[in-house]
Amino acid sequence: MDFKSMIRVIPDFPQPGVSFKDITPLLKDGAAYRAAIDELAERLRPLGPEAVVGPEARGFVIGAPLAYALGVGFVPVRKAGKLPAETVSVEYELEYGYDRLEIHRDALRKGQRVVVADDLLATGGTIRSTIRLVEQLGAHVAASAFLIELTYLEGRAKLAGYHVLSLVQY
Amino acid sequence: MDFKSMIRVIPDFPQPGVSFKDITPLLKDGAAYRAAIDELAERLRPLGPEAVVGPEARGFVIGAPLAYALGVGFVPVRKAGKLPAETVSVEYELEYGYDRLEIHRDALRKGQRVVVADDLLATGGTIRSTIRLVEQLGAHVAASAFLIELTYLEGRAKLAGYHVLSLVQY
Repeated sequence: MDFKSMIRVIPDFPQPGVSFKDITPLLKDGAAYRAAIDELAERLRPLGPEAVVGPEARGFVIGAPLAYALGVGFVPVRKAGKLPAETVSVEYELEYGYDRLEIHRDALRKGQRVVVADDLLATGGTIRSTIRLVEQLGAHVAASAFLIELTYLEGRAKLAGYHVLSLVQY
Repeated sequence: MDFKSMIRVIPDFPQPGVSFKDITPLLKDGAAYRAAIDELAERLRPLGPEAVVGPEARGFVIGAPLAYALGVGFVPVRKAGKLPAETVSVEYELEYGYDRLEIHRDALRKGQRVVVADDLLATGGTIRSTIRLVEQLGAHVAASAFLIELTYLEGRAKLAGYHVLSLVQY
Protein backbone atom coordinates (compact mmCIF):
# COMPACT_ATOMS: atom_id res chain seq x y z
CA MET A 1 0.00 0.00 0.00
CA ASP A 2 1.21 3.52 -0.77
CA PHE A 3 1.32 4.83 2.79
CA LYS A 4 3.30 7.93 1.82
CA SER A 5 0.41 9.32 -0.23
CA MET A 6 -1.68 9.33 2.96
CA ILE A 7 0.79 11.39 4.97
CA ARG A 8 0.18 15.14 4.82
CA VAL A 9 3.22 17.40 4.89
CA ILE A 10 2.57 20.66 6.72
CA PRO A 11 5.20 23.39 6.31
CA ASP A 12 6.38 25.48 9.27
CA PHE A 13 4.72 23.42 12.00
CA PRO A 14 5.21 23.51 14.95
CA GLN A 15 7.75 26.22 14.09
CA PRO A 16 9.18 27.96 11.01
CA GLY A 17 11.45 25.71 8.96
CA VAL A 18 10.00 22.43 10.23
CA SER A 19 8.10 20.33 7.71
CA PHE A 20 5.65 18.35 9.85
CA LYS A 21 4.60 14.86 8.75
CA ASP A 22 0.92 14.57 9.66
CA ILE A 23 -0.16 10.93 9.92
CA THR A 24 -3.82 11.68 10.76
CA PRO A 25 -5.05 11.15 7.15
CA LEU A 26 -3.57 7.64 7.28
CA LEU A 27 -4.97 6.94 10.77
CA LYS A 28 -8.49 7.89 9.78
CA ASP A 29 -8.45 5.48 6.82
CA GLY A 30 -9.35 2.15 8.46
CA ALA A 31 -7.87 -0.03 5.71
CA ALA A 32 -4.61 1.93 5.55
CA TYR A 33 -4.21 2.06 9.33
CA ARG A 34 -4.75 -1.66 9.65
CA ALA A 35 -2.40 -2.41 6.73
CA ALA A 36 0.36 -0.27 8.26
CA ILE A 37 0.10 -1.94 11.66
CA ASP A 38 -0.12 -5.39 10.03
CA GLU A 39 2.99 -4.77 7.95
CA LEU A 40 4.97 -3.69 11.01
CA ALA A 41 3.66 -6.68 12.99
CA GLU A 42 4.54 -9.12 10.21
CA ARG A 43 8.10 -7.83 9.96
CA LEU A 44 8.53 -7.86 13.77
CA ARG A 45 7.00 -11.27 14.51
CA PRO A 46 10.11 -13.28 13.50
CA LEU A 47 12.04 -11.40 16.23
CA GLY A 48 9.75 -12.91 18.89
CA PRO A 49 8.67 -9.69 20.63
CA GLU A 50 7.08 -10.13 24.06
CA ALA A 51 6.01 -6.52 24.66
CA VAL A 52 5.70 -3.17 22.85
CA VAL A 53 6.85 0.03 24.55
CA GLY A 54 5.78 3.42 23.20
CA PRO A 55 6.36 7.03 24.31
CA GLU A 56 3.40 9.35 24.73
CA ALA A 57 1.38 10.49 22.93
CA ARG A 58 1.81 9.61 19.24
CA GLY A 59 3.83 6.52 20.16
CA PHE A 60 0.60 5.17 21.70
CA VAL A 61 -1.20 5.45 18.35
CA ILE A 62 1.31 3.09 16.74
CA GLY A 63 2.51 1.05 19.72
CA ALA A 64 -0.86 0.14 21.22
CA PRO A 65 -2.44 -1.43 18.09
CA LEU A 66 0.91 -3.03 17.27
CA ALA A 67 0.88 -4.75 20.68
CA TYR A 68 -2.71 -5.83 20.05
CA ALA A 69 -1.81 -7.22 16.61
CA LEU A 70 1.19 -9.10 18.03
CA GLY A 71 -0.86 -10.38 20.98
CA VAL A 72 1.59 -8.93 23.51
CA GLY A 73 1.34 -6.31 26.23
CA PHE A 74 1.73 -2.57 25.78
CA VAL A 75 3.88 -0.48 28.11
CA PRO A 76 3.51 3.32 28.05
CA VAL A 77 6.47 5.66 28.51
CA ARG A 78 5.22 8.99 29.81
CA LYS A 79 6.31 12.49 30.69
CA ALA A 80 7.29 13.08 34.31
CA GLY A 81 4.53 12.80 36.91
CA LYS A 82 1.95 10.99 34.76
CA LEU A 83 2.58 7.38 35.82
CA PRO A 84 1.08 6.64 39.23
CA ALA A 85 3.31 3.85 40.59
CA GLU A 86 7.08 3.65 41.18
CA THR A 87 9.05 4.69 38.10
CA VAL A 88 12.54 4.90 36.69
CA SER A 89 13.29 7.97 34.58
CA VAL A 90 15.69 9.52 32.07
CA GLU A 91 16.32 13.16 31.33
CA TYR A 92 16.51 14.27 27.73
CA GLU A 93 17.59 17.50 26.19
CA LEU A 94 15.17 19.84 24.48
CA GLU A 95 16.09 22.84 22.37
CA TYR A 96 15.84 24.91 25.54
CA GLY A 97 16.27 22.98 28.78
CA TYR A 98 15.45 19.42 29.78
CA ASP A 99 12.46 17.12 30.07
CA ARG A 100 12.01 13.72 31.70
CA LEU A 101 10.48 10.45 30.52
CA GLU A 102 9.37 7.69 32.88
CA ILE A 103 8.42 4.02 32.87
CA HIS A 104 6.92 1.94 35.67
CA ARG A 105 9.62 -0.02 37.49
CA ASP A 106 7.54 -3.21 37.28
CA ALA A 107 6.59 -2.75 33.61
CA LEU A 108 9.05 -5.26 32.12
CA ARG A 109 10.83 -8.43 33.18
CA LYS A 110 14.59 -8.92 32.97
CA GLY A 111 15.48 -10.36 29.59
CA GLN A 112 12.02 -9.70 28.12
CA ARG A 113 12.19 -9.08 24.36
CA VAL A 114 10.76 -5.64 23.63
CA VAL A 115 9.87 -3.58 20.57
CA VAL A 116 10.04 0.20 21.04
CA ALA A 117 7.60 1.97 18.72
CA ASP A 118 6.85 5.55 17.74
CA ASP A 119 5.19 7.30 14.84
CA LEU A 120 8.34 8.96 13.58
CA LEU A 121 12.12 8.63 13.78
CA ALA A 122 13.66 12.10 13.51
CA THR A 123 16.90 12.82 15.39
CA GLY A 124 16.28 9.75 17.57
CA GLY A 125 16.27 11.54 20.93
CA THR A 126 12.92 10.28 22.18
CA ILE A 127 13.46 6.68 21.12
CA ARG A 128 16.98 6.65 22.54
CA SER A 129 15.52 7.74 25.89
CA THR A 130 12.84 5.06 25.61
CA ILE A 131 15.50 2.42 24.93
CA ARG A 132 17.49 3.57 27.97
CA LEU A 133 14.39 3.11 30.14
CA VAL A 134 13.79 -0.39 28.78
CA GLU A 135 17.42 -1.33 29.41
CA GLN A 136 17.38 0.15 32.91
CA LEU A 137 14.72 -2.46 33.68
CA GLY A 138 16.99 -5.20 32.33
CA ALA A 139 14.81 -5.93 29.31
CA HIS A 140 16.17 -6.48 25.80
CA VAL A 141 15.36 -4.21 22.83
CA ALA A 142 14.69 -6.58 19.94
CA ALA A 143 13.79 -3.78 17.49
CA SER A 144 12.61 -0.22 17.06
CA ALA A 145 9.65 0.38 14.73
CA PHE A 146 8.35 3.56 13.13
CA LEU A 147 5.72 4.55 10.63
CA ILE A 148 8.03 7.26 9.25
CA GLU A 149 11.78 7.79 9.15
CA LEU A 150 13.35 11.15 8.31
CA THR A 151 16.57 9.71 6.93
CA TYR A 152 18.20 13.14 6.46
CA LEU A 153 18.17 13.65 10.26
CA GLU A 154 20.23 10.46 10.68
CA GLY A 155 18.35 9.18 13.73
CA ARG A 156 19.39 5.68 12.67
CA ALA A 157 22.99 6.58 13.56
CA LYS A 158 21.86 7.18 17.15
CA LEU A 159 20.39 3.67 17.14
CA ALA A 160 23.56 1.88 15.99
CA GLY A 161 23.44 -1.74 17.11
CA TYR A 162 19.63 -1.80 17.19
CA HIS A 163 17.31 -3.21 14.56
CA VAL A 164 15.43 -0.23 12.98
CA LEU A 165 12.26 -0.71 10.97
CA SER A 166 10.26 2.02 9.17
CA LEU A 167 7.46 1.91 6.61
CA VAL A 168 7.89 5.32 4.93
CA GLN A 169 11.10 7.26 4.39
CA TYR A 170 11.76 10.93 3.60
CA MET B 1 -11.96 -12.47 32.07
CA ASP B 2 -11.57 -10.77 35.45
CA PHE B 3 -10.28 -7.43 34.22
CA LYS B 4 -10.79 -5.74 37.58
CA SER B 5 -8.14 -7.90 39.26
CA MET B 6 -5.60 -6.44 36.80
CA ILE B 7 -6.36 -2.82 37.64
CA ARG B 8 -4.18 -1.38 40.39
CA VAL B 9 -5.77 1.16 42.71
CA ILE B 10 -3.32 3.83 43.86
CA PRO B 11 -4.46 6.05 46.74
CA ASP B 12 -3.87 9.80 46.74
CA PHE B 13 -2.74 10.08 43.11
CA PRO B 14 -2.46 12.56 41.45
CA GLN B 15 -3.64 14.38 44.57
CA PRO B 16 -4.78 13.58 48.13
CA GLY B 17 -8.21 11.97 48.27
CA VAL B 18 -8.15 10.66 44.69
CA SER B 19 -8.03 6.88 44.27
CA PHE B 20 -6.31 6.42 40.90
CA LYS B 21 -7.22 3.42 38.74
CA ASP B 22 -3.97 2.30 37.11
CA ILE B 23 -4.61 0.22 33.99
CA THR B 24 -0.94 -0.45 33.19
CA PRO B 25 -0.93 -3.96 34.79
CA LEU B 26 -3.76 -4.90 32.42
CA LEU B 27 -2.08 -3.26 29.39
CA LYS B 28 1.18 -5.14 29.91
CA ASP B 29 -0.63 -8.51 29.98
CA GLY B 30 -0.99 -9.33 26.28
CA ALA B 31 -3.87 -11.77 26.69
CA ALA B 32 -5.84 -9.46 28.99
CA TYR B 33 -5.27 -6.38 26.82
CA ARG B 34 -6.41 -8.23 23.73
CA ALA B 35 -9.44 -9.70 25.52
CA ALA B 36 -10.50 -6.27 26.79
CA ILE B 37 -10.27 -4.66 23.34
CA ASP B 38 -12.00 -7.65 21.74
CA GLU B 39 -14.88 -7.51 24.21
CA LEU B 40 -15.41 -3.79 23.55
CA ALA B 41 -15.18 -4.39 19.79
CA GLU B 42 -17.68 -7.25 19.90
CA ARG B 43 -20.22 -5.18 21.82
CA LEU B 44 -19.74 -2.17 19.52
CA ARG B 45 -19.79 -3.98 16.18
CA PRO B 46 -23.61 -4.30 16.00
CA LEU B 47 -23.80 -0.48 16.12
CA GLY B 48 -21.92 -0.26 12.83
CA PRO B 49 -19.13 2.11 13.89
CA GLU B 50 -17.18 3.74 11.05
CA ALA B 51 -14.49 5.47 13.13
CA VAL B 52 -13.14 5.63 16.68
CA VAL B 53 -12.30 8.98 18.27
CA GLY B 54 -10.14 9.15 21.41
CA PRO B 55 -8.76 12.00 23.54
CA GLU B 56 -5.05 12.10 24.36
CA ALA B 57 -3.21 10.40 25.89
CA ARG B 58 -4.81 7.40 27.63
CA GLY B 59 -7.73 7.51 25.19
CA PHE B 60 -5.22 6.54 22.49
CA VAL B 61 -4.28 3.36 24.38
CA ILE B 62 -7.89 2.14 24.20
CA GLY B 63 -9.17 3.91 21.08
CA ALA B 64 -6.32 3.06 18.70
CA PRO B 65 -6.38 -0.75 19.13
CA LEU B 66 -10.18 -0.63 19.22
CA ALA B 67 -10.16 1.05 15.79
CA TYR B 68 -7.68 -1.56 14.56
CA ALA B 69 -9.87 -4.41 15.88
CA LEU B 70 -12.99 -2.91 14.27
CA GLY B 71 -11.13 -2.25 11.01
CA VAL B 72 -12.02 1.45 11.05
CA GLY B 73 -10.01 4.65 11.24
CA PHE B 74 -8.76 6.31 14.41
CA VAL B 75 -9.15 10.05 15.00
CA PRO B 76 -7.12 11.70 17.78
CA VAL B 77 -8.52 14.52 19.92
CA ARG B 78 -5.64 16.55 21.32
CA LYS B 79 -4.82 19.41 23.63
CA ALA B 80 -4.57 22.85 22.04
CA GLY B 81 -1.74 23.39 19.57
CA LYS B 82 -0.81 19.75 18.96
CA LEU B 83 -2.74 19.06 15.77
CA PRO B 84 -1.01 20.56 12.73
CA ALA B 85 -3.89 21.22 10.30
CA GLU B 86 -7.09 23.25 10.61
CA THR B 87 -9.01 22.37 13.78
CA VAL B 88 -12.25 22.99 15.62
CA SER B 89 -12.00 23.27 19.39
CA VAL B 90 -13.94 23.23 22.65
CA GLU B 91 -13.01 24.72 25.99
CA TYR B 92 -13.52 22.68 29.12
CA GLU B 93 -13.33 23.58 32.75
CA LEU B 94 -10.59 22.34 35.02
CA GLU B 95 -10.51 22.65 38.78
CA TYR B 96 -8.62 25.92 38.28
CA GLY B 97 -9.13 27.59 34.91
CA TYR B 98 -9.80 26.21 31.45
CA ASP B 99 -8.19 23.99 28.87
CA ARG B 100 -8.97 23.33 25.21
CA LEU B 101 -9.38 20.16 23.14
CA GLU B 102 -9.12 20.08 19.35
CA ILE B 103 -9.96 17.85 16.42
CA HIS B 104 -8.97 18.23 12.76
CA ARG B 105 -11.76 19.86 10.77
CA ASP B 106 -11.45 17.19 8.05
CA ALA B 107 -11.26 14.26 10.50
CA LEU B 108 -14.85 13.03 10.09
CA ARG B 109 -17.59 13.07 7.45
CA LYS B 110 -21.09 14.38 8.06
CA GLY B 111 -23.29 11.54 9.33
CA GLN B 112 -20.33 9.22 9.94
CA ARG B 113 -21.05 6.79 12.80
CA VAL B 114 -18.44 7.29 15.50
CA VAL B 115 -17.43 5.59 18.75
CA VAL B 116 -15.76 7.87 21.31
CA ALA B 117 -13.38 5.91 23.54
CA ASP B 118 -11.34 6.59 26.66
CA ASP B 119 -9.76 4.52 29.40
CA LEU B 120 -12.02 5.83 32.15
CA LEU B 121 -15.38 7.51 32.63
CA ALA B 122 -15.22 9.71 35.73
CA THR B 123 -17.26 12.92 35.82
CA GLY B 124 -17.62 12.78 32.04
CA GLY B 125 -16.04 16.15 31.27
CA THR B 126 -13.44 14.96 28.77
CA ILE B 127 -15.75 12.64 26.88
CA ARG B 128 -18.49 15.28 26.77
CA SER B 129 -15.99 17.66 25.15
CA THR B 130 -14.94 14.93 22.72
CA ILE B 131 -18.59 14.33 21.77
CA ARG B 132 -19.09 18.06 21.17
CA LEU B 133 -16.14 18.06 18.77
CA VAL B 134 -17.51 15.06 16.89
CA GLU B 135 -20.92 16.70 16.61
CA GLN B 136 -19.43 20.04 15.52
CA LEU B 137 -18.13 18.13 12.49
CA GLY B 138 -21.65 16.81 11.80
CA ALA B 139 -20.77 13.21 12.65
CA HIS B 140 -22.99 10.93 14.74
CA VAL B 141 -21.95 9.47 18.11
CA ALA B 142 -23.09 5.84 17.99
CA ALA B 143 -21.60 4.98 21.42
CA SER B 144 -19.06 5.86 24.07
CA ALA B 145 -16.77 3.08 25.30
CA PHE B 146 -14.56 2.85 28.39
CA LEU B 147 -12.42 0.28 30.10
CA ILE B 148 -13.51 1.62 33.52
CA GLU B 149 -16.53 3.49 34.82
CA LEU B 150 -16.56 5.22 38.21
CA THR B 151 -20.29 4.93 38.72
CA TYR B 152 -20.27 7.01 41.95
CA LEU B 153 -19.16 10.07 39.95
CA GLU B 154 -22.25 9.76 37.75
CA GLY B 155 -20.53 10.56 34.47
CA ARG B 156 -23.25 8.53 32.76
CA ALA B 157 -25.74 11.25 33.69
CA LYS B 158 -23.68 13.73 31.63
CA LEU B 159 -24.01 11.35 28.68
CA ALA B 160 -27.81 11.04 28.79
CA GLY B 161 -29.08 10.03 25.36
CA TYR B 162 -25.81 8.36 24.39
CA HIS B 163 -25.05 4.64 24.46
CA VAL B 164 -22.45 4.07 27.25
CA LEU B 165 -20.37 0.91 27.45
CA SER B 166 -17.82 0.00 30.16
CA LEU B 167 -16.02 -3.23 31.06
CA VAL B 168 -15.24 -2.61 34.74
CA GLN B 169 -17.25 -0.61 37.25
CA TYR B 170 -16.35 0.87 40.65
